[in-house]
Amino acid sequence: MYVIAVYDIGEKRVGKILKLFRRYLNWIQNSVFEGEITEVKLLELKGKARCIMEMETDSIIIFKSRQEKWLEKEIVGIEPNELGNIL
Amino acid sequence: MYVIAVYDIGEKRVGKILKLFRRYLNWIQNSVFEGEITEVKLLELKGKARCIMEMETDSIIIFKSRQEKWLEKEIVGIEPNELGNIL
Repeated sequence: MYVIAVYDIGEKRVGKILKLFRRYLNWIQNSVFEGEITEVKLLELKGKARCIMEMETDSIIIFKSRQEKWLEKEIVGIEPNELGNIL
Repeated sequence: MYVIAVYDIGEKRVGKILKLFRRYLNWIQNSVFEGEITEVKLLELKGKARCIMEMETDSIIIFKSRQEKWLEKEIVGIEPNELGNIL
């Protein structure tokens, strides 16, 4: 399964969430991740995320697609990974 | 065509980009938008975005899917629109 995950997490918790997400998915921009993941691993990720999140203010949106080919990705401007390498 | 668009734009320009994106897509979280859009309207949006963006630092990622049903959306934590209504 191919997913795009975007989080909106309070500043105090964002470092932990970033570290967690990096273990399961590929970072592509700011608070946006993508990658192939199994249902089981995604459940694991969500479970661990819930332990870090403040459920009244934080949110994560996950878009799931059975196949990556159903999604076409286009980038306008700088390729965010390039920026990641510079920083 | 159904798209998810995420931008990473310098602070000085982010207000303009937000306003522009709101005219074409639905805001769902932070710098994340989604919605049905035609190829022509998407071209228009990208053209206008390029006029605002600093191409060496800013970026927009657009995920396109021919059909919305190919994507399943899941939210963990607060529904971002609820938060939007509160703020």
